[in-house]
Amino acid sequence: MSSQDEIDTDEEMGEARGLTPEMVRTIRIALDEVRNDDVVAAFSELHAADQADLFELFDKERRQSLLLIVGPTLNPDALAEMDEPVRDAVVEMLGPEKLAEAITELDEDDAVYVLDALSEDQQKAVLETVADDIRLPLEEGLSFAEDTAGRLMQRDFVAVPAYWSMGQVIDHLRLTENLPDEFYGIYVIDPSFVPIGWVPLHRAMRTKRPVQIGEIMDHDPMVFPVGMDVEDVAYQVRQYDLFSAPVVDDSGRMIGVIMVDDVLDIVEEEAEEDLFQISGVKEDDLNQSIVRTTKSRFTWLALNLLTAILASVVIGLFDATIEQVVALAVLMPIVASMGGNAGTQTLAIAVRALGTKDLTSSNAMRQIGKELVVGTINGVAFAILIGIATYLWFSDPVLGGVIAAAMVLNMMIAGLAGILIPIGLDRAGADPAISSAVFLTTVTDIVGFFAFLGLGAWLLL
Amino acid sequence: MSSQDEIDTDEEMGEARGLTPEMVRTIRIALDEVRNDDVVAAFSELHAADQADLFELFDKERRQSLLLIVGPTLNPDALAEMDEPVRDAVVEMLGPEKLAEAITELDEDDAVYVLDALSEDQQKAVLETVADDIRLPLEEGLSFAEDTAGRLMQRDFVAVPAYWSMGQVIDHLRLTENLPDEFYGIYVIDPSFVPIGWVPLHRAMRTKRPVQIGEIMDHDPMVFPVGMDVEDVAYQVRQYDLFSAPVVDDSGRMIGVIMVDDVLDIVEEEAEEDLFQISGVKEDDLNQSIVRTTKSRFTWLALNLLTAILASVVIGLFDATIEQVVALAVLMPIVASMGGNAGTQTLAIAVRALGTKDLTSSNAMRQIGKELVVGTINGVAFAILIGIATYLWFSDPVLGGVIAAAMVLNMMIAGLAGILIPIGLDRAGADPAISSAVFLTTVTDIVGFFAFLGLGAWLLL
Repeated sequence: MSSQDEIDTDEEMGEARGLTPEMVRTIRIALDEVRNDDVVAAFSELHAADQADLFELFDKERRQSLLLIVGPTLNPDALAEMDEPVRDAVVEMLGPEKLAEAITELDEDDAVYVLDALSEDQQKAVLETVADDIRLPLEEGLSFAEDTAGRLMQRDFVAVPAYWSMGQVIDHLRLTENLPDEFYGIYVIDPSFVPIGWVPLHRAMRTKRPVQIGEIMDHDPMVFPVGMDVEDVAYQVRQYDLFSAPVVDDSGRMIGVIMVDDVLDIVEEEAEEDLFQISGVKEDDLNQSIVRTTKSRFTWLALNLLTAILASVVIGLFDATIEQVVALAVLMPIVASMGGNAGTQTLAIAVRALGTKDLTSSNAMRQIGKELVVGTINGVAFAILIGIATYLWFSDPVLGGVIAAAMVLNMMIAGLAGILIPIGLDRAGADPAISSAVFLTTVTDIVGFFAFLGLGAWLLL
Repeated sequence: MSSQDEIDTDEEMGEARGLTPEMVRTIRIALDEVRNDDVVAAFSELHAADQADLFELFDKERRQSLLLIVGPTLNPDALAEMDEPVRDAVVEMLGPEKLAEAITELDEDDAVYVLDALSEDQQKAVLETVADDIRLPLEEGLSFAEDTAGRLMQRDFVAVPAYWSMGQVIDHLRLTENLPDEFYGIYVIDPSFVPIGWVPLHRAMRTKRPVQIGEIMDHDPMVFPVGMDVEDVAYQVRQYDLFSAPVVDDSGRMIGVIMVDDVLDIVEEEAEEDLFQISGVKEDDLNQSIVRTTKSRFTWLALNLLTAILASVVIGLFDATIEQVVALAVLMPIVASMGGNAGTQTLAIAVRALGTKDLTSSNAMRQIGKELVVGTINGVAFAILIGIATYLWFSDPVLGGVIAAAMVLNMMIAGLAGILIPIGLDRAGADPAISSAVFLTTVTDIVGFFAFLGLGAWLLL
């Protein structure tokens, strides 16, 4: 039974590590009732990531009182875990001195990440407060461009020359004071500090002391130039199942390491970004202020208003026809909507495939052909369905024929537009996710209304 | 200059590891011209992941001839890297004997992954061919439910009792034959095999031989029950920055390990799934057959057809009004479209926030309120814009007022529906991504048409 007891303990522990709605409520009530000791007691037991979540879940006023109360028990790591808008607010409340204290306790890459989001004045105020030995590496970290390998990398790593014996390596590891907090392999470098090999720690541990490290290393590790885009880094890590890879400067010298766990967030953000951009959201605005959220969503909606007005103009061309056959007005949204939805299906697949490099010039023609065929088949299927439905509803076989023909045409065009628009934007160097949905709806609305009303004007009057 | 030469070499290497469109074309031409030696020479130099990509980029016929030619030079790992539809086709062509050979060379988790996608008959045929010592662990791996920690975990790990000295541990690592291929830490277990601690290898390497491992271990590692859903596993790994964690069976015994790189694909797929499902795509069908793609997209479009017909019925209620004021028909898609788009913005944010547990019962009310306010502000802004535009276009101030009022109402409802629908589906235990977009459009179409035409009928006739 002892093992059963053990697992129960573990599970309870696992639950304690998560932030349940009940815990949030308990802390909120304690906060509102100014039972500060209870707040501190509950808060200080939370994992840094859960502390960050708690700040995100509270509104502005409660965030402020929570910070005032928990102050020193806030785990500095929680800063790096917070959503940007929430972190901005917390940083603002902390002030430069306390922020500098927290920064000092963070890992270097986390510290750079937090500093990066500050205004230049704020950065300066914080950096002036910290000691030189901490400030200099942070300034160096900030000097790399955003979203590059340089920002993502850890600058602490273990590198030794190829002629060292395992004995020398182990003694070096045991005796050196300022080793990285965490490392899972040893890099082998040439005299000009160019990485030429890698030995995972498990191999090093199982190797006898006299063996030279150059004999057991994996040769020619894949390297990332310091200015490489983080999305490309993440792609390579996934594609080649890299566990870690050296980052090199312009002259090929090793200056850092990127590990698989560094790209986890990038991979998620990249896929998430496609969803947001296709849906017309510029950024994850869950915790953004109402003003900023409203503004950022306005732009996309304004674009969409222009599209919708353009579609209205097309309808307006046929106002005389509609006046005589009102059924056309009743049915016309069906054709446009089906085209828009079929096109969006294709768009989602194409945008992701471009992002993951599964859609390239090598297979573009084949995929375009496929989308045209799929669009045509489904177009015919839905043309038959809606043609019959229309005939039954309005007892007009010609009207049924008109909507069927418009449906086939619009769904074929939708399939083509759904893949050609993102490919075209990609070739033009634009992000295919950002604006493709607007272009797509413009096409499917205009084609849908024009085909249906045009055929109607021709055949029904 | 030697370091410059080095980096050039490295960069060329990096490029060689990628599969460029030129390389694909070269191989395709060699294939078409039956220059088999050239095909094999080019193919065999590719990384397994790039070999897999090559199969994905070719059409069915070329895939078949490529496989016939490269046969034994196909890296077994490429099987695990292929998109499922492509792998199915390749597996079919290989036949059970050759597949069994490939499976034997794969890591256990990759082998289980490949086997899992086969039909039961195929699985049986392959497993009958492989040796018992390989078959048994594979069968055990397959016995865990799909999408659980059991499937994801690596079943090779290093675990020792707490009272062992580092010297004992190192000797154990040096002398044991069947250690895992890769491991980055040592687990500490109690007598009933329950994990009680972890020592990362870098710490182990720097510890002197007489020290007991129990003294330097991290206590109480977070554990994953074997049946835990992989999405929950991925969430925990991200939330708590776990590098690796033990998987335990029902009695708490350690039976495997999940590492951060195991969840990389899960994290990506999860975010990608939300995009696909909101866009009405059931699965990544890029490399699916035309028939299967058409069928799977049909379902969503059929649902959408019903929605569109419902909206048409609403319009049909006002056919007499439209006959008298055709401008209503011209303008009505604008109101519906703006509502649909505003709602989709909210939907994307809400669905992702539910997936990443950033939207919980703790902040639901606050977020719902926010969406209502954002919807109202943008609704008023666009009401003014479209009201003025309509007045200028149709010289009818009442028509301008009607569309403005309908716009405010529909965008408020859109904001509410965009967050309430996914929250409701989530509470009901459904996946909020799958069907929320259909519900949303239904709401915004019906409210949009009803409000605009209803107000028009009331005020304009």
